[in-house]
Amino acid sequence: MRPSGRDLSDLRTISIETGVTKHAEGSCLIKMGDTHVLCTATIEDRAPSFLKGSGLGWVTAEYGMLPRATNTRNRREAASGKQGGRTVEIQRLIGRALRAGVDRSALGERQIVVDCDVLQADGGTRCASITGGWVALRLACNKLMKSGACLSDPLPDHVAAISCGIYAGQPVADLDYAEDSEAGTDGNFIMTGRGKIIEVQMSAEGATFSREQMNKLMDLAEAGVAQLVEAQKAAIA
Amino acid sequence: MRPSGRDLSDLRTISIETGVTKHAEGSCLIKMGDTHVLCTATIEDRAPSFLKGSGLGWVTAEYGMLPRATNTRNRREAASGKQGGRTVEIQRLIGRALRAGVDRSALGERQIVVDCDVLQADGGTRCASITGGWVALRLACNKLMKSGACLSDPLPDHVAAISCGIYAGQPVADLDYAEDSEAGTDGNFIMTGRGKIIEVQMSAEGATFSREQMNKLMDLAEAGVAQLVEAQKAAIA
Amino acid sequence: MRPSGRDLSDLRTISIETGVTKHAEGSCLIKMGDTHVLCTATIEDRAPSFLKGSGLGWVTAEYGMLPRATNTRNRREAASGKQGGRTVEIQRLIGRALRAGVDRSALGERQIVVDCDVLQADGGTRCASITGGWVALRLACNKLMKSGACLSDPLPDHVAAISCGIYAGQPVADLDYAEDSEAGTDGNFIMTGRGKIIEVQMSAEGATFSREQMNKLMDLAEAGVAQLVEAQKAAIA
Amino acid sequence: MRPSGRDLSDLRTISIETGVTKHAEGSCLIKMGDTHVLCTATIEDRAPSFLKGSGLGWVTAEYGMLPRATNTRNRREAASGKQGGRTVEIQRLIGRALRAGVDRSALGERQIVVDCDVLQADGGTRCASITGGWVALRLACNKLMKSGACLSDPLPDHVAAISCGIYAGQPVADLDYAEDSEAGTDGNFIMTGRGKIIEVQMSAEGATFSREQMNKLMDLAEAGVAQLVEAQKAAIA
Amino acid sequence: MRPSGRDLSDLRTISIETGVTKHAEGSCLIKMGDTHVLCTATIEDRAPSFLKGSGLGWVTAEYGMLPRATNTRNRREAASGKQGGRTVEIQRLIGRALRAGVDRSALGERQIVVDCDVLQADGGTRCASITGGWVALRLACNKLMKSGACLSDPLPDHVAAISCGIYAGQPVADLDYAEDSEAGTDGNFIMTGRGKIIEVQMSAEGATFSREQMNKLMDLAEAGVAQLVEAQKAAIA
Amino acid sequence: MRPSGRDLSDLRTISIETGVTKHAEGSCLIKMGDTHVLCTATIEDRAPSFLKGSGLGWVTAEYGMLPRATNTRNRREAASGKQGGRTVEIQRLIGRALRAGVDRSALGERQIVVDCDVLQADGGTRCASITGGWVALRLACNKLMKSGACLSDPLPDHVAAISCGIYAGQPVADLDYAEDSEAGTDGNFIMTGRGKIIEVQMSAEGATFSREQMNKLMDLAEAGVAQLVEAQKAAIA
Repeated sequence: MRPSGRDLSDLRTISIETGVTKHAEGSCLIKMGDTHVLCTATIEDRAPSFLKGSGLGWVTAEYGMLPRATNTRNRREAASGKQGGRTVEIQRLIGRALRAGVDRSALGERQIVVDCDVLQADGGTRCASITGGWVALRLACNKLMKSGACLSDPLPDHVAAISCGIYAGQPVADLDYAEDSEAGTDGNFIMTGRGKIIEVQMSAEGATFSREQMNKLMDLAEAGVAQLVEAQKAAIA
Repeated sequence: MRPSGRDLSDLRTISIETGVTKHAEGSCLIKMGDTHVLCTATIEDRAPSFLKGSGLGWVTAEYGMLPRATNTRNRREAASGKQGGRTVEIQRLIGRALRAGVDRSALGERQIVVDCDVLQADGGTRCASITGGWVALRLACNKLMKSGACLSDPLPDHVAAISCGIYAGQPVADLDYAEDSEAGTDGNFIMTGRGKIIEVQMSAEGATFSREQMNKLMDLAEAGVAQLVEAQKAAIA
Repeated sequence: MRPSGRDLSDLRTISIETGVTKHAEGSCLIKMGDTHVLCTATIEDRAPSFLKGSGLGWVTAEYGMLPRATNTRNRREAASGKQGGRTVEIQRLIGRALRAGVDRSALGERQIVVDCDVLQADGGTRCASITGGWVALRLACNKLMKSGACLSDPLPDHVAAISCGIYAGQPVADLDYAEDSEAGTDGNFIMTGRGKIIEVQMSAEGATFSREQMNKLMDLAEAGVAQLVEAQKAAIA
Repeated sequence: MRPSGRDLSDLRTISIETGVTKHAEGSCLIKMGDTHVLCTATIEDRAPSFLKGSGLGWVTAEYGMLPRATNTRNRREAASGKQGGRTVEIQRLIGRALRAGVDRSALGERQIVVDCDVLQADGGTRCASITGGWVALRLACNKLMKSGACLSDPLPDHVAAISCGIYAGQPVADLDYAEDSEAGTDGNFIMTGRGKIIEVQMSAEGATFSREQMNKLMDLAEAGVAQLVEAQKAAIA
Repeated sequence: MRPSGRDLSDLRTISIETGVTKHAEGSCLIKMGDTHVLCTATIEDRAPSFLKGSGLGWVTAEYGMLPRATNTRNRREAASGKQGGRTVEIQRLIGRALRAGVDRSALGERQIVVDCDVLQADGGTRCASITGGWVALRLACNKLMKSGACLSDPLPDHVAAISCGIYAGQPVADLDYAEDSEAGTDGNFIMTGRGKIIEVQMSAEGATFSREQMNKLMDLAEAGVAQLVEAQKAAIA
Repeated sequence: MRPSGRDLSDLRTISIETGVTKHAEGSCLIKMGDTHVLCTATIEDRAPSFLKGSGLGWVTAEYGMLPRATNTRNRREAASGKQGGRTVEIQRLIGRALRAGVDRSALGERQIVVDCDVLQADGGTRCASITGGWVALRLACNKLMKSGACLSDPLPDHVAAISCGIYAGQPVADLDYAEDSEAGTDGNFIMTGRGKIIEVQMSAEGATFSREQMNKLMDLAEAGVAQLVEAQKAAIA
């Protein structure tokens, strides 16, 4: 029934390649099927000014999409002079999600910037950015631990994200573009490795939904995130 | 236990005054306690170009906050040269929420722009904007029906929104600023008059949450939205 | 002869409601007929950097108009990425006018920002902003006096403004939009409570004017400002 | 008493050289003492869209200042990404002033853009721009008359402008920078060749003024503009 | 003598992988040692408006660098609101270079946009962008030929580019970052497959150079471009 | 054969008038035929922050063109909100060129900003800006020497620039607009008074070129720059 032939709860093939750029403190290329996102983590010695003297660190994220990551070319945001509303919304989400998993006291007064750049898009880029961004962040934190800059682990648990939605009347996991563009309801579910919830966003597009449907999507999401966390573990092993 | 002395499920005092500006096709001033938002609906004869020839209409929203709507003055966005990330995120949410309640075919190829401007802020401005924005939209649609421009009702059901969160370990409804700034988890719940869900956004800030807590917030939200819908009905009667 | 039926020297109904927002150090909602402007004054502890060490304070103003304050919707300036020429011109005028009435030495090295936001427009918004902005400024200065931050009064006299013009060949006071859009000549007159002049701007639109006409407009303006000052006194009493 | 040794009513040396650029339809370099402004008029075959079908033309102006036209270097507005408030205010004034002298029906549905670029500034640049801009406009209109594009003269009268102010307690004409920066009150006076008034702007800076002072400045302005009109006549002869 | 141990005329290892994104009409990932650039070509059915009715096509280029492509993180240009001077200069160069190799009449009234995004930088990104951008363009033109949209080949010859410079007193080919940052003189040399020159840019940084040195760099460049053209041929075979 | 009737190696009439503005530390108006550029040099006491503590100075340049410097009016860059790509490219070139001739240690930790504003354009504005900009810089350095701020000369040699190209199949020097717009290849050649090369940029437009042609243009350029240096010497004598 799904365009890709997947079962309702099947995720796409997951690939997380680490250490893909020589400059960044942490990096990976995450592929969820045909969605490819390059994630890098940059350690900066200074926290934002509003944290001065607090002893707390900060994690923030920026998101971009190459102009031809999509089926038709999008105007380059650097050329149009500002980040579009969708970009702003997504990068705020990524930042909040990753930050929720951070022990900011253990991080200390420094900032880690996670850049997520979509090289190829086929649905679910914001979730792939969070899952891959966490891997980049993990690798950067490993450096901080190894060098002694951080004495305890600033990243006590995994963070991963999946989109689920109602496609052709059925709850399905990890929507690709063909499904996403047709789904009447979809949601992004961000959870920790221990199954706690960080953020849930569910939206009707053209049709409302019920609490029963909401619960079914949550079930799919819990199972999906567990698989993503396994893939993260394998990648950083 | 709540700073305002309210019970866990109590909303703030709701006031919705309609017809507050002489120029707009629909308008209201909504007050949720000390949060005051002026909402206007403007009918434009043309739909956005991507709908040309489709027979479908569009509803969009813009959000703003007066510089001194808050405790300290915020820089005027017109002066700083762009809308901040928070504004962009909020106005996209308001637009999606209101659009989800619209019969775009009944509306026909025209656009209604809903402007939500916060005159005074005390938490929950995005939810108040949706609840009040719907009233302005309703009044504008009444004009379209009365003039014969629309033959069937473009607005078949109510849309209203409430924020709920975990404050001091307890689920509470309709957070004010004092609660919102302390809550470990909060969410915005957008529903129709018939109790169907349009959008749910729940976010941990500094603490994750469980499905059980999520369900308790949903219960509060359902009860709260029902009260808001009654207030909308009274306002447009 | 006037569209509103007013006599040549009649002002519109004046209403000045103070204390309309709970956050600002001074605020009022001024209504000149159907022109409604929300004015707030914000005290900032630091003066602009060019005054550092001078012992002198500063007063500045910003002006905005809600998108649907007018008969047709104007594009939101925050969304278009800059303040238009008309806005810039008006807020510079408001700032100069209010500053001219301030004893900057008594104010000390701090800044007061006066925000004037037009909720509904029907002509004369810049004059209403000055008259109402002064009231907000007065209330903020009262706070500074009361708290002992200022030992002598930084606001020794009233400042108020009125527009007058040649409508249908006759000099008239306090133009509303119907008159303003037809007037061949109009002017803005800003004066103190003691009748001294702060700024005069008279402009021909499509027809030049003579010194005799200029004098008649000045006569109207003097009488009109005196009434506005009385309204200010009543509001702050 | 004046820093330059001039009498109270003396203007600075006026020089208007026409035909200074080979490309523009009309051009001049106006020098009022050490204030030098290059003015060009460009004829465009299309009027702005709001005039389509009206049979009326339009005249608009833009103003700029070279970065080192002043004693200390100003940031280039093209580099800072927007025209400052002062620039916007000035170019709106120049446009209004020149437009007030135009027979827009005789001009027909075309636009003339007058560019005023200050090469060297020593006070009074906006007035010099109007006086010189009119000469450039006059030369462009001559071309339209000569070519038969305009059958009657779109420019029936002269427009010129002068600044006058209260310096060291005395009313003086044509303020230079040394005077302008000290004057408690100054004004810009824009008049026609027949002595009718187009625009008057008088402003107190740090001191209010009286109607008597206002009248004295008007007297100086009338005499000054008459001399400027003579200089315009000589330049275009 | 070279930090990498290469001989004076040695290029870095060249790798050109084609078809790296599923959406673009032509694409490749070019690696010149540690400099990695993703190049895509997008065919647009419309030429720019200035070519309307001319029968000629257009090729343009845009250039970007991921924030952490370099040793320290660069601010994202989309976030800073404009493309920096270096970016603008580079993308104009890429566009000119590729355009010089195009038969714009054979291309017909359409546009091809070449996007060059640097994933990892180690010197020579503009030259790699041209060499890789040509491959993406070649693949897009192949599509136009195959579909019959172009009857003759719009791309009659190869275009490739190399940087050469004076490093430690010696002329060297294909500078990496370690050399580029120390070189007193360097240049970019853009040539065709037949050895004709399209563009030469040589610049002294801190030291001038002589015609003799210029000729030696030209010799290196000719040999280097010949190798790059062979790599292009192998990639598209 | 040349539109102007000049011989292949003839430059246009050169005129360099110094001291043309009373405010700048150095200034000149350079005329290369009908190309007129006003150049000013501003001494700033502080070097850019990246040079703090280095003991080295900096020279930078900005370039602008009056809207009607050209045959048709160009939109004012300050009004369009950014400097166009051509402007950015040119001012970076001017800055690099002038900086290459500076002894930054002798200059000390200060900055000189050279502004080049084109009053009238007829081809070759970037070269005229460099040649004239150097004169303004020379005069500013003279001031620094005279005042004792610099003990040794920060400007040990001349810098001048010329454009040469292939017009109608022949190499010609100092292209005017009529030639420039038709030339298949042209280049900008920047050299010192001693004949050393600072920067060479040669570009094909619609036709490639050979090393032989490149050498002929270099010959013309060497002779041309020598004449420009003589004109600089005469101007500053």
